[in-house]
Amino acid sequence: MPNIKLEIEYDGTNYAGWQIQNSHKSQGTGHKLRTIQETIEWTLQKILQEKVKVIASGRTDSGVHALAQAANFRTKSKLSLLKIQKALNSLLPGDISIKKIKEVKESFHSRYQVKTKTYRYIIHNDRFPSVFLTRFSWHIPYKLDIKLMRQEAKTLIGTHSFKSFCASGSTVKTTTRTIQNIAIKTIGYTLYAIRYALIIIDIEADGFLYNMVRNIAGTLVEIGRGRLAKGSLKRILQAKDRRLAGPTAPPQGLFLRRVKYY
Amino acid sequence: MPNIKLEIEYDGTNYAGWQIQNSHKSQGTGHKLRTIQETIEWTLQKILQEKVKVIASGRTDSGVHALAQAANFRTKSKLSLLKIQKALNSLLPGDISIKKIKEVKESFHSRYQVKTKTYRYIIHNDRFPSVFLTRFSWHIPYKLDIKLMRQEAKTLIGTHSFKSFCASGSTVKTTTRTIQNIAIKTIGYTLYAIRYALIIIDIEADGFLYNMVRNIAGTLVEIGRGRLAKGSLKRILQAKDRRLAGPTAPPQGLFLRRVKYY
Repeated sequence: MPNIKLEIEYDGTNYAGWQIQNSHKSQGTGHKLRTIQETIEWTLQKILQEKVKVIASGRTDSGVHALAQAANFRTKSKLSLLKIQKALNSLLPGDISIKKIKEVKESFHSRYQVKTKTYRYIIHNDRFPSVFLTRFSWHIPYKLDIKLMRQEAKTLIGTHSFKSFCASGSTVKTTTRTIQNIAIKTIGYTLYAIRYALIIIDIEADGFLYNMVRNIAGTLVEIGRGRLAKGSLKRILQAKDRRLAGPTAPPQGLFLRRVKYY
Repeated sequence: MPNIKLEIEYDGTNYAGWQIQNSHKSQGTGHKLRTIQETIEWTLQKILQEKVKVIASGRTDSGVHALAQAANFRTKSKLSLLKIQKALNSLLPGDISIKKIKEVKESFHSRYQVKTKTYRYIIHNDRFPSVFLTRFSWHIPYKLDIKLMRQEAKTLIGTHSFKSFCASGSTVKTTTRTIQNIAIKTIGYTLYAIRYALIIIDIEADGFLYNMVRNIAGTLVEIGRGRLAKGSLKRILQAKDRRLAGPTAPPQGLFLRRVKYY
Protein backbone atom coordinates (compact mmCIF):
# COMPACT_ATOMS: atom_id res chain seq x y z
CA MET A 1 0.00 0.00 0.00
CA PRO A 2 1.62 3.34 -1.04
CA ASN A 3 3.19 5.28 1.82
CA ILE A 4 2.80 9.06 1.40
CA LYS A 5 4.87 11.71 3.16
CA LEU A 6 3.60 15.24 3.77
CA GLU A 7 5.35 18.47 4.70
CA ILE A 8 2.83 20.55 6.64
CA GLU A 9 2.80 24.22 7.64
CA TYR A 10 0.37 25.35 10.32
CA ASP A 11 -0.59 28.30 12.45
CA GLY A 12 -1.27 26.54 15.75
CA THR A 13 -3.14 29.46 17.37
CA ASN A 14 -6.58 27.87 17.16
CA TYR A 15 -5.63 24.23 17.80
CA ALA A 16 -5.07 22.03 20.83
CA GLY A 17 -1.75 20.92 19.32
CA TRP A 18 -1.02 18.15 16.84
CA GLN A 19 -2.22 15.06 18.54
CA ILE A 20 -5.72 13.63 18.91
CA GLN A 21 -6.59 13.41 22.57
CA ASN A 22 -8.70 10.49 23.61
CA SER A 23 -10.81 12.15 26.24
CA HIS A 24 -11.55 15.44 24.59
CA LYS A 25 -14.86 16.80 23.43
CA SER A 26 -14.18 18.30 20.07
CA GLN A 27 -17.56 17.70 18.46
CA GLY A 28 -18.60 21.24 17.80
CA THR A 29 -18.07 22.44 21.34
CA GLY A 30 -14.83 24.36 21.65
CA HIS A 31 -12.82 25.69 18.72
CA LYS A 32 -9.72 25.35 20.90
CA LEU A 33 -10.13 21.60 21.26
CA ARG A 34 -9.61 20.61 17.64
CA THR A 35 -6.22 19.13 16.87
CA ILE A 36 -4.19 19.40 13.66
CA GLN A 37 -4.02 15.61 13.32
CA GLU A 38 -7.78 15.06 13.40
CA THR A 39 -8.39 17.99 11.06
CA ILE A 40 -6.02 16.49 8.47
CA GLU A 41 -7.30 12.92 8.99
CA TRP A 42 -10.96 13.94 8.57
CA THR A 43 -10.10 15.87 5.41
CA LEU A 44 -8.02 13.01 3.97
CA GLN A 45 -10.80 10.53 4.72
CA LYS A 46 -13.25 12.71 2.83
CA ILE A 47 -10.89 12.84 -0.16
CA LEU A 48 -9.73 9.21 -0.15
CA GLN A 49 -13.00 7.63 0.99
CA GLU A 50 -11.17 5.33 3.37
CA LYS A 51 -9.97 5.31 6.96
CA VAL A 52 -6.58 7.06 7.25
CA LYS A 53 -4.11 7.38 10.10
CA VAL A 54 -1.60 10.24 9.84
CA ILE A 55 1.64 9.79 11.80
CA ALA A 56 3.76 12.89 12.49
CA SER A 57 7.39 13.31 13.53
CA GLY A 58 6.07 14.15 16.98
CA ARG A 59 3.36 16.14 18.67
CA THR A 60 3.43 19.90 18.93
CA ASP A 61 1.65 21.55 21.84
CA SER A 62 -1.39 23.77 21.92
CA GLY A 63 -0.65 27.09 20.22
CA VAL A 64 2.68 25.95 18.75
CA HIS A 65 3.24 26.41 14.99
CA ALA A 66 4.99 24.38 12.30
CA LEU A 67 6.97 25.56 9.31
CA ALA A 68 7.57 22.01 8.18
CA GLN A 69 6.00 19.26 10.23
CA ALA A 70 6.67 15.86 8.64
CA ALA A 71 3.97 13.20 8.56
CA ASN A 72 3.05 10.07 6.62
CA PHE A 73 0.00 7.94 5.88
CA ARG A 74 -0.83 4.83 3.86
CA THR A 75 -3.58 4.72 1.26
CA LYS A 76 -5.06 2.38 -1.31
CA SER A 77 -6.26 5.36 -3.34
CA LYS A 78 -5.33 5.69 -7.01
CA LEU A 79 -5.50 9.51 -6.93
CA SER A 80 -2.32 11.30 -8.07
CA LEU A 81 -0.20 13.01 -5.44
CA LEU A 82 -0.83 16.43 -6.95
CA LYS A 83 -4.59 15.81 -6.85
CA ILE A 84 -4.41 14.79 -3.19
CA GLN A 85 -2.33 17.87 -2.33
CA LYS A 86 -4.67 20.22 -4.19
CA ALA A 87 -7.76 18.63 -2.66
CA LEU A 88 -6.24 18.89 0.83
CA ASN A 89 -5.27 22.53 0.38
CA SER A 90 -8.70 23.45 -0.90
CA LEU A 91 -10.60 21.58 1.86
CA LEU A 92 -8.34 22.24 4.85
CA PRO A 93 -8.87 25.42 6.89
CA GLY A 94 -6.64 28.36 5.95
CA ASP A 95 -4.35 27.81 8.94
CA ILE A 96 -3.10 24.41 7.74
CA SER A 97 -1.25 24.04 4.44
CA ILE A 98 0.34 21.05 2.69
CA LYS A 99 3.62 22.37 1.27
CA LYS A 100 4.99 19.12 -0.17
CA ILE A 101 3.78 15.61 -0.89
CA LYS A 102 5.76 12.58 -2.09
CA GLU A 103 5.70 8.81 -2.07
CA VAL A 104 8.25 7.22 0.26
CA LYS A 105 9.30 3.63 0.71
CA GLU A 106 7.02 1.21 2.51
CA SER A 107 9.21 1.14 5.63
CA PHE A 108 9.30 4.91 6.23
CA HIS A 109 7.89 6.00 9.60
CA SER A 110 7.64 9.72 10.46
CA ARG A 111 8.30 9.28 14.16
CA TYR A 112 10.69 6.34 14.54
CA GLN A 113 13.20 7.39 11.89
CA VAL A 114 13.79 11.00 12.95
CA LYS A 115 17.48 11.90 12.97
CA THR A 116 17.16 15.48 14.23
CA LYS A 117 14.47 18.09 14.65
CA THR A 118 14.99 21.83 14.64
CA TYR A 119 12.74 24.13 16.63
CA ARG A 120 12.72 27.90 16.25
CA TYR A 121 11.74 30.27 19.02
CA ILE A 122 10.94 33.88 18.03
CA ILE A 123 11.21 36.76 20.49
CA HIS A 124 9.95 40.20 19.55
CA ASN A 125 12.29 42.49 21.46
CA ASP A 126 10.90 46.01 21.25
CA ARG A 127 9.46 48.47 23.71
CA PHE A 128 5.88 47.93 22.56
CA PRO A 129 4.15 44.84 21.19
CA SER A 130 3.07 44.75 17.56
CA VAL A 131 -0.36 43.60 16.47
CA PHE A 132 1.28 41.87 13.50
CA LEU A 133 3.65 39.78 15.60
CA THR A 134 1.65 38.77 18.70
CA ARG A 135 0.36 35.53 17.14
CA PHE A 136 3.86 34.41 16.19
CA SER A 137 6.30 35.63 18.84
CA TRP A 138 6.95 36.34 22.53
CA HIS A 139 7.11 40.07 23.23
CA ILE A 140 9.95 41.06 25.59
CA PRO A 141 10.12 44.82 26.26
CA TYR A 142 13.44 44.68 28.17
CA LYS A 143 16.89 45.09 26.68
CA LEU A 144 18.54 41.69 26.31
CA ASP A 145 22.26 40.93 26.32
CA ILE A 146 22.40 38.79 23.19
CA LYS A 147 26.14 38.20 23.43
CA LEU A 148 25.79 36.68 26.88
CA MET A 149 22.78 34.61 25.79
CA ARG A 150 24.80 33.23 22.87
CA GLN A 151 27.78 32.46 25.08
CA GLU A 152 25.67 30.69 27.70
CA ALA A 153 23.68 28.75 25.09
CA LYS A 154 26.88 27.02 23.95
CA THR A 155 26.90 25.13 27.28
CA LEU A 156 23.86 23.19 26.10
CA ILE A 157 25.43 21.80 22.92
CA GLY A 158 26.28 18.11 23.17
CA THR A 159 24.84 15.14 25.04
CA HIS A 160 23.42 15.94 28.46
CA SER A 161 20.57 15.17 30.77
CA PHE A 162 18.14 18.04 30.15
CA LYS A 163 16.08 17.26 33.25
CA SER A 164 16.31 20.92 34.38
CA PHE A 165 14.48 21.94 31.20
CA CYS A 166 11.83 19.22 31.23
CA ALA A 167 8.30 19.97 32.45
CA SER A 168 7.89 18.49 35.91
CA GLY A 169 5.52 15.54 36.02
CA SER A 170 6.68 14.32 32.61
CA THR A 171 7.43 10.60 32.49
CA VAL A 172 10.18 9.65 30.06
CA LYS A 173 12.61 6.74 30.05
CA THR A 174 15.62 9.01 29.83
CA THR A 175 16.17 12.76 30.03
CA THR A 176 19.36 12.50 27.97
CA ARG A 177 19.31 14.22 24.60
CA THR A 178 21.92 15.51 22.16
CA ILE A 179 21.77 19.11 20.99
CA GLN A 180 23.65 19.43 17.70
CA ASN A 181 23.42 23.16 17.45
CA ILE A 182 21.95 26.31 18.98
CA ALA A 183 22.01 29.51 16.94
CA ILE A 184 20.81 32.86 18.25
CA LYS A 185 20.31 35.52 15.58
CA THR A 186 18.93 39.02 15.67
CA ILE A 187 16.90 40.22 12.73
CA GLY A 188 15.80 43.74 11.95
CA TYR A 189 12.51 42.93 10.31
CA THR A 190 11.28 45.88 8.29
CA LEU A 191 8.56 44.34 6.17
CA TYR A 192 5.77 46.45 7.60
CA ALA A 193 7.58 49.80 7.31
CA ILE A 194 8.55 49.95 10.95
CA ARG A 195 11.64 48.12 12.11
CA TYR A 196 10.75 45.20 14.31
CA ALA A 197 13.63 43.75 16.35
CA LEU A 198 13.44 39.97 16.48
CA ILE A 199 15.60 37.43 18.23
CA ILE A 200 15.55 33.97 16.68
CA ILE A 201 16.68 30.93 18.66
CA ASP A 202 17.17 27.77 16.56
CA ILE A 203 17.81 24.50 18.39
CA GLU A 204 18.61 21.27 16.57
CA ALA A 205 18.57 18.05 18.60
CA ASP A 206 17.99 14.32 18.22
CA GLY A 207 14.93 14.72 20.39
CA PHE A 208 13.27 17.11 22.83
CA LEU A 209 11.77 16.63 26.26
CA TYR A 210 8.33 18.04 27.06
CA ASN A 211 8.55 21.89 27.02
CA MET A 212 12.33 21.72 26.58
CA VAL A 213 12.66 24.46 23.95
CA ARG A 214 10.25 26.77 25.78
CA ASN A 215 12.10 26.23 29.07
CA ILE A 216 15.47 26.91 27.43
CA ALA A 217 14.05 30.06 25.76
CA GLY A 218 12.59 31.24 29.09
CA THR A 219 15.93 30.68 30.82
CA LEU A 220 17.91 32.43 28.08
CA VAL A 221 15.65 35.47 28.46
CA GLU A 222 16.34 35.54 32.23
CA ILE A 223 20.05 35.53 31.39
CA GLY A 224 19.65 38.23 28.75
CA ARG A 225 17.77 40.43 31.24
CA GLY A 226 20.53 40.05 33.80
CA ARG A 227 18.43 38.09 36.30
CA LEU A 228 20.71 35.07 35.96
CA ALA A 229 24.46 35.65 35.91
CA LYS A 230 27.12 34.35 33.56
CA GLY A 231 27.70 30.65 34.17
CA SER A 232 24.10 30.05 35.28
CA LEU A 233 23.18 27.79 32.42
CA LYS A 234 25.98 25.33 33.18
CA ARG A 235 24.97 25.26 36.84
CA ILE A 236 21.28 24.77 35.99
CA LEU A 237 22.05 22.01 33.49
CA GLN A 238 24.20 20.13 36.00
CA ALA A 239 21.71 20.48 38.85
CA LYS A 240 19.04 18.49 36.96
CA ASP A 241 16.38 20.48 38.80
CA ARG A 242 13.54 22.14 36.90
CA ARG A 243 13.05 24.71 39.69
CA LEU A 244 16.37 26.38 38.92
CA ALA A 245 15.62 27.14 35.26
CA GLY A 246 13.64 30.16 34.05
CA PRO A 247 9.92 30.28 33.27
CA THR A 248 8.39 28.41 30.34
CA ALA A 249 8.24 30.74 27.34
CA PRO A 250 4.72 31.02 25.83
CA PRO A 251 3.72 28.67 22.98
CA GLN A 252 3.03 31.27 20.29
CA GLY A 253 6.76 31.96 19.79
CA LEU A 254 7.55 28.32 19.00
CA PHE A 255 7.82 26.80 15.51
CA LEU A 256 8.78 23.28 14.46
CA ARG A 257 11.16 24.28 11.71
CA ARG A 258 12.64 21.15 10.15
CA VAL A 259 12.74 17.36 10.57
CA LYS A 260 15.70 15.36 9.26
CA TYR A 261 15.53 11.60 8.71
CA TYR A 262 18.10 8.79 8.60
CA MET B 1 -8.31 71.64 26.27
CA PRO B 2 -5.22 69.55 25.39
CA ASN B 3 -5.26 68.03 21.92
CA ILE B 4 -3.61 64.58 21.83
CA LYS B 5 -2.34 62.83 18.71
CA LEU B 6 -2.05 59.05 18.45
CA GLU B 7 -0.18 56.79 16.07
CA ILE B 8 -2.13 53.52 15.90
CA GLU B 9 -1.24 50.09 14.54
CA TYR B 10 -4.02 47.60 13.95
CA ASP B 11 -4.77 44.21 12.50
CA GLY B 12 -8.10 44.92 10.81
CA THR B 13 -9.09 41.26 10.31
CA ASN B 14 -11.76 41.23 13.00
CA TYR B 15 -13.14 44.75 12.53
CA ALA B 16 -15.70 46.44 10.32
CA GLY B 17 -13.12 49.10 9.46
CA TRP B 18 -12.22 52.28 11.31
CA GLN B 19 -15.40 54.24 11.37
CA ILE B 20 -18.44 53.94 13.61
CA GLN B 21 -21.44 53.18 11.45
CA ASN B 22 -24.70 54.73 12.52
CA SER B 23 -27.00 51.90 11.66
CA HIS B 24 -24.96 48.95 12.76
CA LYS B 25 -25.77 46.51 15.52
CA SER B 26 -22.52 46.00 17.32
CA GLN B 27 -23.86 45.43 20.83
CA GLY B 28 -22.64 41.94 21.42
CA THR B 29 -24.12 40.51 18.25
CA GLY B 30 -21.43 40.06 15.64
CA HIS B 31 -17.70 40.22 16.29
CA LYS B 32 -17.29 41.49 12.74
CA LEU B 33 -19.33 44.61 13.36
CA ARG B 34 -17.07 46.29 15.89
CA THR B 35 -15.08 49.18 14.50
CA ILE B 36 -11.60 50.35 15.49
CA GLN B 37 -12.90 53.83 16.29
CA GLU B 38 -15.53 52.70 18.77
CA THR B 39 -13.14 50.24 20.40
CA ILE B 40 -10.62 53.02 21.03
CA GLU B 41 -13.28 55.54 22.09
CA TRP B 42 -14.85 53.13 24.60
CA THR B 43 -11.43 52.32 26.06
CA LEU B 44 -10.41 55.99 26.26
CA GLN B 45 -13.68 56.87 27.96
CA LYS B 46 -13.04 54.21 30.59
CA ILE B 47 -9.55 55.62 31.22
CA LEU B 48 -10.38 59.33 31.09
CA GLN B 49 -13.84 59.14 32.65
CA GLU B 50 -15.24 61.57 30.11
CA LYS B 51 -16.84 61.51 26.69
CA VAL B 52 -14.16 61.35 23.94
CA LYS B 53 -14.34 61.65 20.19
CA VAL B 54 -11.39 60.23 18.23
CA ILE B 55 -10.83 61.70 14.76
CA ALA B 56 -8.64 59.72 12.32
CA SER B 57 -6.87 60.74 9.11
CA GLY B 58 -9.60 58.86 7.28
CA ARG B 59 -11.55 55.64 7.44
CA THR B 60 -10.07 52.30 6.56
CA ASP B 61 -12.38 49.58 5.29
CA SER B 62 -13.39 46.29 6.83
CA GLY B 63 -10.39 43.96 7.02
CA VAL B 64 -7.84 46.64 6.12
CA HIS B 65 -4.84 47.10 8.46
CA ALA B 66 -2.85 50.11 9.64
CA LEU B 67 0.84 50.41 10.35
CA ALA B 68 0.44 54.00 11.41
CA GLN B 69 -3.06 55.42 11.41
CA ALA B 70 -3.03 58.99 12.76
CA ALA B 71 -5.80 60.22 15.04
CA ASN B 72 -6.43 62.93 17.63
CA PHE B 73 -8.78 63.62 20.54
CA ARG B 74 -9.30 66.36 23.12
CA THR B 75 -9.37 65.73 26.84
CA LYS B 76 -9.61 67.59 30.13
CA SER B 77 -7.77 64.76 31.87
CA LYS B 78 -4.62 65.50 33.90
CA LEU B 79 -3.17 62.02 33.28
CA SER B 80 0.31 62.00 31.74
CA LEU B 81 0.65 60.94 28.12
CA LEU B 82 2.70 57.89 29.05
CA LYS B 83 0.01 56.81 31.53
CA ILE B 84 -2.69 57.19 28.88
CA GLN B 85 -0.65 55.20 26.36
CA LYS B 86 0.10 52.41 28.84
CA ALA B 87 -3.52 52.24 30.00
CA LEU B 88 -4.72 52.08 26.39
CA ASN B 89 -2.27 49.33 25.46
CA SER B 90 -3.20 47.26 28.47
CA LEU B 91 -6.98 47.65 28.01
CA LEU B 92 -7.25 47.54 24.21
CA PRO B 93 -7.57 44.14 22.49
CA GLY B 94 -4.29 42.64 21.22
CA ASP B 95 -5.03 43.61 17.62
CA ILE B 96 -4.93 47.38 18.28
CA SER B 97 -1.77 49.05 19.59
CA ILE B 98 -0.92 52.68 20.34
CA LYS B 99 2.63 53.16 19.04
CA LYS B 100 3.04 56.86 19.80
CA ILE B 101 1.27 59.59 21.71
CA LYS B 102 2.00 63.32 21.85
CA GLU B 103 0.35 66.64 22.54
CA VAL B 104 -0.25 68.75 19.44
CA LYS B 105 -1.40 72.29 19.03
CA GLU B 106 -5.03 73.18 19.63
CA SER B 107 -5.73 73.65 15.90
CA PHE B 108 -4.47 70.24 14.75
CA HIS B 109 -7.08 68.10 12.97
CA SER B 110 -6.21 64.55 11.86
CA ARG B 111 -8.40 64.61 8.79
CA TYR B 112 -8.42 68.19 7.47
CA GLN B 113 -4.66 68.78 7.59
CA VAL B 114 -3.47 65.65 5.80
CA LYS B 115 -0.78 66.44 3.23
CA THR B 116 -0.29 62.91 1.87
CA LYS B 117 -1.14 59.37 2.86
CA THR B 118 0.80 56.28 1.86
CA TYR B 119 -0.92 52.93 1.46
CA ARG B 120 0.93 49.64 1.09
CA TYR B 121 -0.49 46.64 -0.74
CA ILE B 122 1.20 43.27 -0.10
CA ILE B 123 1.00 40.41 -2.60
CA HIS B 124 2.30 36.97 -1.67
CA ASN B 125 3.50 35.61 -5.01
CA ASP B 126 4.24 31.92 -4.55
CA ARG B 127 2.76 28.69 -5.84
CA PHE B 128 1.07 27.84 -2.54
CA PRO B 129 -0.43 30.10 0.11
CA SER B 130 1.23 30.31 3.50
CA VAL B 131 -0.70 30.04 6.75
CA PHE B 132 1.53 32.80 8.16
CA LEU B 133 0.74 35.30 5.42
CA THR B 134 -2.96 34.82 4.61
CA ARG B 135 -4.12 37.40 7.16
CA PHE B 136 -1.81 40.05 5.76
CA SER B 137 -1.49 39.58 2.01
CA TRP B 138 -3.18 38.61 -1.25
CA HIS B 139 -1.95 35.26 -2.52
CA ILE B 140 -1.29 35.18 -6.28
CA PRO B 141 -0.02 31.80 -7.56
CA TYR B 142 0.76 33.05 -11.09
CA LYS B 143 4.07 34.40 -12.29
CA LEU B 144 3.90 38.20 -12.52
CA ASP B 145 5.89 40.48 -14.82
CA ILE B 146 7.10 42.96 -12.21
CA LYS B 147 9.04 45.05 -14.72
CA LEU B 148 5.92 45.68 -16.78
CA MET B 149 3.86 46.40 -13.65
CA ARG B 150 6.44 48.98 -12.58
CA GLN B 151 6.55 50.58 -16.02
CA GLU B 152 2.75 50.79 -16.28
CA ALA B 153 2.37 52.09 -12.72
CA LYS B 154 4.37 55.21 -13.64
CA THR B 155 1.42 56.32 -15.79
CA LEU B 156 -0.55 56.96 -12.63
CA ILE B 157 1.92 59.40 -11.06
CA GLY B 158 0.69 62.99 -11.16
CA THR B 159 -2.69 64.69 -11.07
CA HIS B 160 -5.49 62.80 -12.80
CA SER B 161 -9.10 61.85 -12.50
CA PHE B 162 -8.98 58.37 -10.98
CA LYS B 163 -12.62 57.65 -11.78
CA SER B 164 -11.67 54.32 -13.40
CA PHE B 165 -10.30 53.17 -10.04
CA CYS B 166 -13.12 54.43 -7.86
CA ALA B 167 -15.80 52.05 -6.56
CA SER B 168 -18.98 52.59 -8.58
CA GLY B 169 -21.77 54.17 -6.59
CA SER B 170 -19.34 56.32 -4.66
CA THR B 171 -20.37 59.96 -4.37
CA VAL B 172 -17.48 62.38 -4.24
CA LYS B 173 -17.19 66.02 -5.30
CA THR B 174 -14.20 65.35 -7.49
CA THR B 175 -12.39 62.23 -8.66
CA THR B 176 -9.14 64.18 -9.17
CA ARG B 177 -6.25 63.21 -6.94
CA THR B 178 -2.48 63.60 -7.10
CA ILE B 179 -0.27 60.54 -6.76
CA GLN B 180 3.21 61.61 -5.63
CA ASN B 181 4.82 58.24 -5.94
CA ILE B 182 4.24 54.57 -6.66
CA ALA B 183 6.98 52.10 -5.74
CA ILE B 184 6.81 48.38 -6.50
CA LYS B 185 9.35 46.26 -4.68
CA THR B 186 9.94 42.55 -4.45
CA ILE B 187 11.09 41.10 -1.17
CA GLY B 188 12.43 37.64 -0.48
CA TYR B 189 11.12 37.24 3.02
CA THR B 190 12.91 34.43 4.80
CA LEU B 191 11.95 35.00 8.41
CA TYR B 192 10.15 31.71 8.81
CA ALA B 193 12.87 29.52 7.27
CA ILE B 194 11.18 29.19 3.91
CA ARG B 195 11.58 31.93 1.36
CA TYR B 196 8.33 33.79 0.80
CA ALA B 197 8.20 35.95 -2.31
CA LEU B 198 6.38 39.20 -1.64
CA ILE B 199 5.49 42.09 -3.91
CA ILE B 200 5.00 45.39 -2.12
CA ILE B 201 3.12 48.25 -3.78
CA ASP B 202 3.45 51.61 -2.00
CA ILE B 203 1.26 54.49 -3.20
CA GLU B 204 1.57 58.01 -1.82
CA ALA B 205 -1.16 60.51 -2.72
CA ASP B 206 -2.86 63.62 -1.41
CA GLY B 207 -6.03 61.58 -1.08
CA PHE B 208 -7.65 58.35 -2.22
CA LEU B 209 -11.03 57.54 -3.69
CA TYR B 210 -13.10 54.68 -2.31
CA ASN B 211 -11.28 51.36 -3.08
CA MET B 212 -8.71 53.21 -5.21
CA VAL B 213 -5.61 51.37 -3.95
CA ARG B 214 -7.31 47.98 -4.14
CA ASN B 215 -8.55 48.69 -7.67
CA ILE B 216 -5.09 49.81 -8.77
CA ALA B 217 -3.54 46.69 -7.17
CA GLY B 218 -6.11 44.46 -8.88
CA THR B 219 -5.40 46.09 -12.23
CA LEU B 220 -1.62 45.85 -11.82
CA VAL B 221 -1.98 42.11 -11.14
CA GLU B 222 -3.97 41.73 -14.39
CA ILE B 223 -1.12 43.47 -16.18
CA GLY B 224 1.52 41.35 -14.44
CA ARG B 225 -0.34 38.17 -15.43
CA GLY B 226 -0.46 39.24 -19.05
CA ARG B 227 -4.24 39.65 -19.18
CA LEU B 228 -3.89 43.37 -19.89
CA ALA B 229 -1.25 44.49 -22.40
CA LYS B 230 1.39 47.18 -22.19
CA GLY B 231 -0.24 50.62 -22.35
CA SER B 232 -3.46 49.42 -20.74
CA LEU B 233 -3.12 51.48 -17.63
CA LYS B 234 -2.95 54.74 -19.56
CA ARG B 235 -5.99 53.77 -21.60
CA ILE B 236 -7.96 52.75 -18.52
CA LEU B 237 -7.02 55.96 -16.69
CA GLN B 238 -8.12 58.13 -19.60
CA ALA B 239 -11.40 56.27 -20.14
CA LYS B 240 -12.69 57.21 -16.64
CA ASP B 241 -14.70 54.01 -16.63
CA ARG B 242 -14.51 51.60 -13.67
CA ARG B 243 -15.55 48.67 -15.87
CA LEU B 244 -12.24 48.73 -17.75
CA ALA B 245 -10.02 48.35 -14.70
CA GLY B 246 -9.17 45.03 -13.05
CA PRO B 247 -10.93 43.46 -10.07
CA THR B 248 -10.78 44.95 -6.58
CA ALA B 249 -7.91 43.33 -4.68
CA PRO B 250 -9.00 41.82 -1.33
CA PRO B 251 -8.78 43.95 1.85
CA GLN B 252 -6.34 41.80 3.84
CA GLY B 253 -3.38 42.88 1.65
CA LEU B 254 -3.92 46.58 2.35
CA PHE B 255 -2.14 48.64 5.01
CA LEU B 256 -2.35 52.35 5.79
CA ARG B 257 1.35 52.93 6.09
CA ARG B 258 1.94 56.60 6.83
CA VAL B 259 0.14 59.95 7.11
CA LYS B 260 1.99 63.20 6.52
CA TYR B 261 0.65 66.57 7.69
CA TYR B 262 1.14 70.17 6.60
